[in-house]
Amino acid sequence: MVRLKFFIELNYEIDYAPADFIFNIHAAQTQSQSLVTENLQVNQPIPTSLYTDPVRGNRYVRLRANPGKLTVRYDATVDIVHHIASPDSVQEVPIAEVPWEALPYIYPSRYCQSDRLQHLANSEFGALQPGYWRVRAIQDWVKRQTRFVSGSSNATTSAVDTLVEQVGVCRDFAHLMIALCRALNIPARFATGIDYGADPIFGPTDFHAYVETFLSGRWYLFDATGMALPTGLIRLGVGRDAADVSFATIFGSVRSEPPVIGIEAIEDSESGIVLPYACVDAISTHDGN
Amino acid sequence: MVRLKFFIELNYEIDYAPADFIFNIHAAQTQSQSLVTENLQVNQPIPTSLYTDPVRGNRYVRLRANPGKLTVRYDATVDIVHHIASPDSVQEVPIAEVPWEALPYIYPSRYCQSDRLQHLANSEFGALQPGYWRVRAIQDWVKRQTRFVSGSSNATTSAVDTLVEQVGVCRDFAHLMIALCRALNIPARFATGIDYGADPIFGPTDFHAYVETFLSGRWYLFDATGMALPTGLIRLGVGRDAADVSFATIFGSVRSEPPVIGIEAIEDSESGIVLPYACVDAISTHDGN
Amino acid sequence: MVRLKFFIELNYEIDYAPADFIFNIHAAQTQSQSLVTENLQVNQPIPTSLYTDPVRGNRYVRLRANPGKLTVRYDATVDIVHHIASPDSVQEVPIAEVPWEALPYIYPSRYCQSDRLQHLANSEFGALQPGYWRVRAIQDWVKRQTRFVSGSSNATTSAVDTLVEQVGVCRDFAHLMIALCRALNIPARFATGIDYGADPIFGPTDFHAYVETFLSGRWYLFDATGMALPTGLIRLGVGRDAADVSFATIFGSVRSEPPVIGIEAIEDSESGIVLPYACVDAISTHDGN
Amino acid sequence: MVRLKFFIELNYEIDYAPADFIFNIHAAQTQSQSLVTENLQVNQPIPTSLYTDPVRGNRYVRLRANPGKLTVRYDATVDIVHHIASPDSVQEVPIAEVPWEALPYIYPSRYCQSDRLQHLANSEFGALQPGYWRVRAIQDWVKRQTRFVSGSSNATTSAVDTLVEQVGVCRDFAHLMIALCRALNIPARFATGIDYGADPIFGPTDFHAYVETFLSGRWYLFDATGMALPTGLIRLGVGRDAADVSFATIFGSVRSEPPVIGIEAIEDSESGIVLPYACVDAISTHDGN
Repeated sequence: MVRLKFFIELNYEIDYAPADFIFNIHAAQTQSQSLVTENLQVNQPIPTSLYTDPVRGNRYVRLRANPGKLTVRYDATVDIVHHIASPDSVQEVPIAEVPWEALPYIYPSRYCQSDRLQHLANSEFGALQPGYWRVRAIQDWVKRQTRFVSGSSNATTSAVDTLVEQVGVCRDFAHLMIALCRALNIPARFATGIDYGADPIFGPTDFHAYVETFLSGRWYLFDATGMALPTGLIRLGVGRDAADVSFATIFGSVRSEPPVIGIEAIEDSESGIVLPYACVDAISTHDGN
Repeated sequence: MVRLKFFIELNYEIDYAPADFIFNIHAAQTQSQSLVTENLQVNQPIPTSLYTDPVRGNRYVRLRANPGKLTVRYDATVDIVHHIASPDSVQEVPIAEVPWEALPYIYPSRYCQSDRLQHLANSEFGALQPGYWRVRAIQDWVKRQTRFVSGSSNATTSAVDTLVEQVGVCRDFAHLMIALCRALNIPARFATGIDYGADPIFGPTDFHAYVETFLSGRWYLFDATGMALPTGLIRLGVGRDAADVSFATIFGSVRSEPPVIGIEAIEDSESGIVLPYACVDAISTHDGN
Repeated sequence: MVRLKFFIELNYEIDYAPADFIFNIHAAQTQSQSLVTENLQVNQPIPTSLYTDPVRGNRYVRLRANPGKLTVRYDATVDIVHHIASPDSVQEVPIAEVPWEALPYIYPSRYCQSDRLQHLANSEFGALQPGYWRVRAIQDWVKRQTRFVSGSSNATTSAVDTLVEQVGVCRDFAHLMIALCRALNIPARFATGIDYGADPIFGPTDFHAYVETFLSGRWYLFDATGMALPTGLIRLGVGRDAADVSFATIFGSVRSEPPVIGIEAIEDSESGIVLPYACVDAISTHDGN
Repeated sequence: MVRLKFFIELNYEIDYAPADFIFNIHAAQTQSQSLVTENLQVNQPIPTSLYTDPVRGNRYVRLRANPGKLTVRYDATVDIVHHIASPDSVQEVPIAEVPWEALPYIYPSRYCQSDRLQHLANSEFGALQPGYWRVRAIQDWVKRQTRFVSGSSNATTSAVDTLVEQVGVCRDFAHLMIALCRALNIPARFATGIDYGADPIFGPTDFHAYVETFLSGRWYLFDATGMALPTGLIRLGVGRDAADVSFATIFGSVRSEPPVIGIEAIEDSESGIVLPYACVDAISTHDGN
């Protein structure tokens, strides 16, 4: 088991009129990820409404803030139990056996136009043995083809753009990998989180985006950038793509400051709590329901 | 109440290997739409699995068919009770009050890139009084801007393409209207169905695509093409856009014939069952849950 | 006659290896625009090669610069004689009579996808009386639809993007106007220059992009942003779109500083030299050859 | 020398009003391609105007046809002398030495968005030895990546679409190859013609599109589909991409029939006239001016 403690602080300046916010900054509650403690602080004396998506476990908070400064800070400590499997044993699931709940993740979405990548996916990966290693081959291909350049993409950049221009940030890597998986009928979805131990050369801790694909009855984690330690990922939300799990959706005239995020791992060998570790095995934190 | 009797017959020729199919051709079961009778016939002696999406009420059937001819025929009679409201009383819902279940429908999706249409939506419709009539203004605008031409679009055509090229079929009209609504933070979704009384100049009865927007706590119907009689629409599925509610998703090497569809309305004045009728009021068949 | 004196100074830092540059910063020499003086200074002791496009009159300089700092400064004084016509007398030219030299400007180009805007152009402008005022209607429409926001577009932004997103800078306004004209079979081309008297709220003098359309046997000027004084425009280059007339095309690893540009108008009433002036008439600086 | 005899017959039905046509169906006249005989027949008694582009040698005919049937038939016999070079001796030209006339062909155009393919071109081909074989590597890559499927593309399909969807016809192959060459600063242009000896499985003789790149001071031929015999190509036109050299540009309400094209090779060993032949060498029909 891994125990991670983190905080996310978001600062905004709201102009003349009240603005609505939907945040997805709470740690998801799943079979594998449980809360030890959590705390949400808002600097304005306003009501907040918390919602947990019954299907995906994403937790959202909504609030209407008044003009002036808004600071939202979320602190949490979570325990994560990883399901570890031997890659050789992790299989793709025939369409006829994919559970209904996972089927939405084979269809194209805003940023993952899998319908346009059928030929490409089949010519690059169609001849590979189906299973975990084929998905890893997709991950490696995306990583090899794409250059990580901060600021190289924007809110309209999609998997097709990333394929063509071969540059992007973590969300773009994830979108391209997802689109390629779906083009092969492998259910794939977009996950957001915070990652412990990300390569410090890319600057301060930030939100991270990664991929889950449905294999052998579970959702397995893949980091298309190859920069994160999968056992060091806290999950915030999952969805079809970034359109579903923005950490903040803002309605109104608002200026944003960059998020401030901190994370640390807590070790407690007596309780069997270890630091996030590198691992060549397949890792899952979510079963198929 | 309206009673509609219809059938959908789909014919395929499957090549050398078994092929998987997911069909969304069953009438949805909602508070407003109930089944009198239904029957599914498949010409091959194969098992079928039926699933009802617990959130949206869409009903899907999945099957694996063998090489050779596959015929799937669905017959049903449904009763539809329409919620009718005076347009003047139907309001847009402030973001702070949109139920969590409806929020996914404000985000961009594969074919409805609302994120790119913010300026356009605001300059065209931002100054209008929010409410039912503003949504009607969007519908009218889409209809005025876009020419209905059979065969003018394909499976990759999106709202942005339709906006630029000003030509499309019912699904394209719906996508553009949805994208514009979402750009104004009005939840909007894509519905598929069969329509009674469609203008016969466009050929035999076919699947139809229309729009639902969330107003005053319910989903109200809009037909962006202006060609359907909203009270004559049977609902099959709702989703974010056409990617969610294809009537048939096919996995394998399969040739398709055009669908054969028939519909008739049944009148029974003693039971209060009337023919579909033209109506200037706002019409809803689904509350907000 | 108008006399304008201007300079353009470009500064670069070239990395480890020599880099090639093609500049289009010389004042064009046309029937209407003649040089009083000009001078090109390059801080490195390197050869430069000057070329005048025989068809369009654009003047290009090419050089290979060594690692280190490169400063290129061009100073010129030009006299411009404007051909002024009454808008009512300026007609569109039937395709059968467009000179062969102007025909390339009816075809789509990288940033002006006129082929996709046929329906739009015809539905918006098809019913208007052909002629100068119809082109002005296109200019006004582009200006009304599009918001001028510095930094809102990039090197891949095209007319279709600007149409959809309704935001851009002068080059984007010009591309959209050109694409709409071509969709109506009106030859239209992209011009770059420096403008005297641009609205100072948009910052220091910069390169400007505007439009020429072929009417009544001449190329007439239109500024799609509506911000420039057409009689205050110096022409540098004309082409199909920005891909043809970049002020600097750079081959190599080079950092660029923002251009420094100055312009002043010289008045000399004895010689009949006046300041640039506002004018409701149609203005041309180039006949049709 | 190769001697080819061919005809192109185009049939149209013009609706209620006269329609303008610009045809590019005449054999180009270049240093390498000379006319033995030619004849243009038009079934309507209308004037035609013939124009030769002084820079590229393309020959265009323009006419205004009356309502009713229009048949245009062009017959010609041409002699083609091929410049043959050893591939190892054919070099890329440094930007500093590319003649000004060839420079327009390094910029992006409507269907060849080389600006978006810089990363891809550099990562795939950047490490290869510059020269003829690198261009061949690009040709082979395009051919390997792309499936030839008749009817798979349309008038708006660009190199980026072909890259993503990996399917197209000869014009799409050519556009993608051109865009990749330009992304590496290799001047590349689009050529249209008729090809002798095209693989008959793709149906009757049709227009063909191929590529010329500027190497060692000449334009060398490449057929991105790999299906044509380069020595069996008659050139009609060259341009930046298909937007420049459509065989027919039509203004008006016109129905078109498929073109009827025939070609034969004439052998006359006494005069040194041979049949088109396969050849592993580099082939050029146009020097750099």
